[in-house]
Amino acid sequence: MRIIHVKDFIGEEVEIKGWLYNKRSKGKILFLIVRDGSGYIQVVGVKGESPDYIFDIYDELGLESSVIVKGIVRKEPRSIGGYELSLTGLEPVQIAVDYPIQKKEHGTAFLMEHRHLWIRSKKQRAILRIRNEVEKAIVDFFYENDFVRIDTPILTPTAAEGSTTLFSTEYFDMGKAYLAQTGQLYLEAAIFANGLVYNFGPTFRAEKSKTRRHLTEFWMVEAEEAYYDNDDNMKVQENFISYIIERVIKRCADELKILERDTNILQSISLPFPKITYDDAVELLQKDGFSTKWGEDFGGDEETAISKHFDKPVFIMDYPRKIKAFYMKEHSERPELVRCADLIAPEGYGEIIGGSQREDDYDKLLARMEEFGLAIENYRWYLDLRKYGSVVHSGFGLGIERTVAWICGIPHVREATAFPRMLYRIYP
Amino acid sequence: MRIIHVKDFIGEEVEIKGWLYNKRSKGKILFLIVRDGSGYIQVVGVKGESPDYIFDIYDELGLESSVIVKGIVRKEPRSIGGYELSLTGLEPVQIAVDYPIQKKEHGTAFLMEHRHLWIRSKKQRAILRIRNEVEKAIVDFFYENDFVRIDTPILTPTAAEGSTTLFSTEYFDMGKAYLAQTGQLYLEAAIFANGLVYNFGPTFRAEKSKTRRHLTEFWMVEAEEAYYDNDDNMKVQENFISYIIERVIKRCADELKILERDTNILQSISLPFPKITYDDAVELLQKDGFSTKWGEDFGGDEETAISKHFDKPVFIMDYPRKIKAFYMKEHSERPELVRCADLIAPEGYGEIIGGSQREDDYDKLLARMEEFGLAIENYRWYLDLRKYGSVVHSGFGLGIERTVAWICGIPHVREATAFPRMLYRIYP
Repeated sequence: MRIIHVKDFIGEEVEIKGWLYNKRSKGKILFLIVRDGSGYIQVVGVKGESPDYIFDIYDELGLESSVIVKGIVRKEPRSIGGYELSLTGLEPVQIAVDYPIQKKEHGTAFLMEHRHLWIRSKKQRAILRIRNEVEKAIVDFFYENDFVRIDTPILTPTAAEGSTTLFSTEYFDMGKAYLAQTGQLYLEAAIFANGLVYNFGPTFRAEKSKTRRHLTEFWMVEAEEAYYDNDDNMKVQENFISYIIERVIKRCADELKILERDTNILQSISLPFPKITYDDAVELLQKDGFSTKWGEDFGGDEETAISKHFDKPVFIMDYPRKIKAFYMKEHSERPELVRCADLIAPEGYGEIIGGSQREDDYDKLLARMEEFGLAIENYRWYLDLRKYGSVVHSGFGLGIERTVAWICGIPHVREATAFPRMLYRIYP
Repeated sequence: MRIIHVKDFIGEEVEIKGWLYNKRSKGKILFLIVRDGSGYIQVVGVKGESPDYIFDIYDELGLESSVIVKGIVRKEPRSIGGYELSLTGLEPVQIAVDYPIQKKEHGTAFLMEHRHLWIRSKKQRAILRIRNEVEKAIVDFFYENDFVRIDTPILTPTAAEGSTTLFSTEYFDMGKAYLAQTGQLYLEAAIFANGLVYNFGPTFRAEKSKTRRHLTEFWMVEAEEAYYDNDDNMKVQENFISYIIERVIKRCADELKILERDTNILQSISLPFPKITYDDAVELLQKDGFSTKWGEDFGGDEETAISKHFDKPVFIMDYPRKIKAFYMKEHSERPELVRCADLIAPEGYGEIIGGSQREDDYDKLLARMEEFGLAIENYRWYLDLRKYGSVVHSGFGLGIERTVAWICGIPHVREATAFPRMLYRIYP
């Protein structure tokens, strides 16, 4: 029996297999909070009613001991989860002594070093359950919209966005392989088979940045759409984000409450999202007192400043081509720009989506790759896609940890995944 | 309009954006087969009825050209997909000249070198759509059964199953990191927070084996269950496999037909699956003429031979501990064995699941790790799990490519993923 199911057994005796989350005793009464991963339940023992031996072992039961408890289910609206057990039996499975994480405040370094235990705590568990829901919403959205999932390779012979921030490994006798920062180029190949495709997996960036928005290993979902231009692409993204948010609000109310998340902004997100151009954004920043000049990329501070002007995610479109990747589609009227859009989360959570229309013209793409100094030989296959039935197409990538951090309202992405990898952190 | 939706527009004019899959002309009539990723449709042009210009450009339209066609939808049971278009307009988007993959037979090396184009072919696309369905079934199964998804790290400081077959990379100033072969140890930590958990992602094995069952990068789904013993674990696996098979049979009938898959065995798979012990398996092999001795592991040939005795997947339980991983639970009556089970697919497709109960006793686990020569310091966190609320627990891992290969009835796992990575293959 899992705790989520006790509500169907009022008046009956049930057995719960879990861990001791908290305990206290008061005169002839003892209160145990037991958790089993599906929920929390208070178990109440009364001397004379519950078996005596439990009162004898009570003191030995360290927090986080594994226990199997039996009790009669009662409705109790004041209790955690709304139900209680009247204790009828308790079997300690393994007694935990001096569980390292106590009620007192611990420093982040200590908690990260004990991440394998920290994830048991109420808030951390709530975050990971919200992540679970976000990830299920992602695959449901794409499945329902007839996108075919393509697992793009991690080990790749080339560096799609420059090699300085790539992890590499020796690939047998074939030289170096790089851990992919994106599966986009492969998804582009796959649209010709399936029209609409997506991937969902880990991504790697060997960046020496130590910010609250960066991990060296993070999860990304990327989509690619044949015969979609940048505007069509933004429509998919709006629907996608709003689908995820609605799902989490509906199914993770308890978790959002545990995190004390003010859900007003999440609740009120409606379509369409505001769209401004890169030109507008620069102007906005300059009015806000930033020294940003046209042609420069935006950092975290700039993104935060821009997001403060909106109470919804905002698209920034049509960046200068010089600061964007080689594969982006040249703007038809202003060739110094590319047809792209970054989606900035509200409340200062930064860029959560990067997307663009892709260059579908063989000659322009080739020129651009040469300009970027790419080893064309490695990209023959990619260029083939512009020779054999090239079409207008677009796509985007959403960062999971940033999205989860935003939805949860937590300041650092490191808590948005179970075992984060950072510049100085690879344990546990 | 996508081709799957034309059935709702009989008698109306629709526009399809896709690629020219095939063409032929016969007197005053031309037939185009157009595909758009969602399906295939025959488009019929008749001189005098369809616009003249289309007949003028017909010869130029190379296979795999991108085209936008317009036509009136007609029901036509003899035609591919059951519907046809009476051609009213055609816009060539980009003309493909000399598409490399022709109707004639190509060698595997050529096709693998052109994998980015080969995936457009009917059979390859069918395989990838079945994979898509398998993967959706996987996440649905775990979500419906209240497993929480945990994305376990790829970059890990240690080697869970020995380091000789691991890819490694420099991790900044912190020495080597290894690409994970399993996320199991991390999932074990996560059961204490969630009870039931799973992961789903890429896995890496730098094995110099060149068989039809091995890739260097493959996808795996792993599950871990608190308070489940090896028998409970096998029940989850049976339900899981049967859920996936039922789903594919129900939703991928067209794809299975394209692959000419004899679905009799798939259709008739029912619960429970047969279970034999390792002891039984050795006896069976010896009767079959193998020279396998007790204590030796089984290779592909042995697995195939065993599977031929059953028309369903078969569990082989309780292997000698010497040939299994350090974390497996010692058999209570025969300490030379461990409580584990491999699931062997029927029809000679080999092991698709490896699973076991885990050693939950601190001292026994420690002794076992020392016996294996593991650097205990790196596993402090893993040992903690046996100190703070240890419980009986079990888990398993399913290989995606082998499962897809089995369901599709294809002999080699390399076609079960879009861009396979093998000993001598990292391009495209």
